[in-house]
Amino acid sequence: MKSFQPSGVITFTTDFGHKGPFIGTMKGAILSRFRDATIVDISHETSVHWPAEAGFWISRSYQYFPEGTVHVAIVDPGVGGQRDIIVAINNRHCFIAPDNGLLTPLLKSTEMEAYRIDLDALEHLALPKPSATFHGRDIFAPVAAEIARGALSPSQVGEPKTELVPSLLDEAEQSNGAVSGVVVTVDNFGNLITNIDESLVVQLESPICEIGGHRMKFHRTYARVTPGEYLALINSFGVVEIARAEQSAALGLGMGRGAPVRLVEDH
Amino acid sequence: MKSFQPSGVITFTTDFGHKGPFIGTMKGAILSRFRDATIVDISHETSVHWPAEAGFWISRSYQYFPEGTVHVAIVDPGVGGQRDIIVAINNRHCFIAPDNGLLTPLLKSTEMEAYRIDLDALEHLALPKPSATFHGRDIFAPVAAEIARGALSPSQVGEPKTELVPSLLDEAEQSNGAVSGVVVTVDNFGNLITNIDESLVVQLESPICEIGGHRMKFHRTYARVTPGEYLALINSFGVVEIARAEQSAALGLGMGRGAPVRLVEDH
Amino acid sequence: MKSFQPSGVITFTTDFGHKGPFIGTMKGAILSRFRDATIVDISHETSVHWPAEAGFWISRSYQYFPEGTVHVAIVDPGVGGQRDIIVAINNRHCFIAPDNGLLTPLLKSTEMEAYRIDLDALEHLALPKPSATFHGRDIFAPVAAEIARGALSPSQVGEPKTELVPSLLDEAEQSNGAVSGVVVTVDNFGNLITNIDESLVVQLESPICEIGGHRMKFHRTYARVTPGEYLALINSFGVVEIARAEQSAALGLGMGRGAPVRLVEDH
Repeated sequence: MKSFQPSGVITFTTDFGHKGPFIGTMKGAILSRFRDATIVDISHETSVHWPAEAGFWISRSYQYFPEGTVHVAIVDPGVGGQRDIIVAINNRHCFIAPDNGLLTPLLKSTEMEAYRIDLDALEHLALPKPSATFHGRDIFAPVAAEIARGALSPSQVGEPKTELVPSLLDEAEQSNGAVSGVVVTVDNFGNLITNIDESLVVQLESPICEIGGHRMKFHRTYARVTPGEYLALINSFGVVEIARAEQSAALGLGMGRGAPVRLVEDH
Repeated sequence: MKSFQPSGVITFTTDFGHKGPFIGTMKGAILSRFRDATIVDISHETSVHWPAEAGFWISRSYQYFPEGTVHVAIVDPGVGGQRDIIVAINNRHCFIAPDNGLLTPLLKSTEMEAYRIDLDALEHLALPKPSATFHGRDIFAPVAAEIARGALSPSQVGEPKTELVPSLLDEAEQSNGAVSGVVVTVDNFGNLITNIDESLVVQLESPICEIGGHRMKFHRTYARVTPGEYLALINSFGVVEIARAEQSAALGLGMGRGAPVRLVEDH
Repeated sequence: MKSFQPSGVITFTTDFGHKGPFIGTMKGAILSRFRDATIVDISHETSVHWPAEAGFWISRSYQYFPEGTVHVAIVDPGVGGQRDIIVAINNRHCFIAPDNGLLTPLLKSTEMEAYRIDLDALEHLALPKPSATFHGRDIFAPVAAEIARGALSPSQVGEPKTELVPSLLDEAEQSNGAVSGVVVTVDNFGNLITNIDESLVVQLESPICEIGGHRMKFHRTYARVTPGEYLALINSFGVVEIARAEQSAALGLGMGRGAPVRLVEDH
């Protein structure tokens, strides 16, 4: 099965922030093995120790990269413990992440092709003896480099995985003509981004969005309302977003990650 | 007119911050069309919803990149509304930005060569159907990629523009032997950076800088005064900067963006 | 002596932060001279005006990059003053930094090969007339580009240096069976990272770590203790780190950069 042909592009999504040499040394480890890699940062500011946000963004972002990209996602509070590292193929992209729920929403919608990294099976790669606390540099990056340069096939990293640790993020639910979800993350503008997919919105005739006692109507974009006004919209990643035109909805509403959101019919 | 020969380099200047996959997916969209692009971030932390800062930095920074670079600048509160997107050529560099005043100071000093993106004229590029809220990924990035790889000439994106939306940033002014300007931005060290060009400073014989009731002398560099002392200087981008040696002038003076600054003769 | 063969990779470590075009224009200056450079950011968020943190990370990180990499480190409160800029070779890597103690710990452990940049000796490079406040863009970046593309040998930049300004960071010390050090930096997770090398730890039989009146045991990794519990560990860069599983030790202990740390025998 030739479901993955490497493009030479590698992306990173982590909770490492920009302090310290963590991201830089992962890139060094890649370039040491694959000098012509093209490396792109998706974000290093996903919620610390909470794999769900990184997984949410990866699942909504990978499609914008060339087929054959290797996506490395590391939010890994269990590093050095018993958790597995998985390499998965989905829609001709490759994903490497700890098995802690991060990739579960992305992979469960498909016939899953995933493998568990077995360091014994990778002896020929001469990986460094991994540190106990930074597998990003010592395992994820070198494995990504070898896959991205075409020297290692995802199925060679170890045995297939048939079950993954469940996600920490509940899915949005529909019942009695209403939809319930949560805020997954807040962007740089204070927009509240939820886990409610547009496919759930279109099932309502005239949806109204409720959060923290406030109710707001749906509009197509920020520019449709007066600056300062709240609105709900389907954002550019296909999920419901609560915004305030030219201001921060998060500050204005006092709401953030985890806040419950409901869509109801406007009667 | 061969005023632009692409170098393959693309820069980004935005107010998107580093949370979320916004910058990453723009780069993915570029690599999907132009695998060999060299992409450089200028800054993603310009003032949110205020195009003037991004425009200020672009106009002072583009010269340091190779000729033929495509500079994408996105501070775009009107996204999805009626505002145009413009592609301009200036000094053999290409600029793409919303028509909201961002590029106006840069372009007005020259015989302007600018075009308004017309999606109908770009049908052959098979752009994605643009989302209502993220034209950076859906329009700016793919157009930049096609121009940077030499497949699209700036003049092919649509009709010429002869007038631009005015800038939100007033220019520094000279009258009665004094110069008046404002703080445009504050850097990581707390230095206050103004819109007063050095050409205005040299017209004073013995200039003193006034801000918030404080007066400071001009020096060549931070190292010329004792740590903790305030100074004014012509900074490395050719504008007046108010600094405090080894400390933050912004914190020490309690001043920030928008604060009025005056240069007077030291009598 | 062929102790340095350029790989074409250049890294940056600075205290510039991500506001403003400082990092971007340094990269532009590099690409203008060496279009095929591969540029990697190590960190731009090291402590402002304190060269010791940048020097600490550089000395612990450079090994993860390909041999022949040029590492540019700029924490430079004395810019424009009398301080020298040095180019050094160490273990087949090249380092460029102000002579303010930044590179001293790295270089003193070796037979030092270092040169002082003499702009007169570099006239053939047609460097721009350097600004008084941004040598990163005007000197460090172009010199790094010329070295990285193989057009300039480190020994050609100027006369050899035989002595460097001492580091601002004291080294960890051992006496009476105890080890004394300090916190050098705090990472994105609130882990406190010290200057105590693992070689000092292994000389204790059963080490206990003391900081701010708290005592914590050593464990191999975060996952070995209950979330919320404090621990000490040898981190992935070979130094003692004080952590709190899935939480911030810095916030929990109220400790940060400069805090004294002691290792004692657990009696």
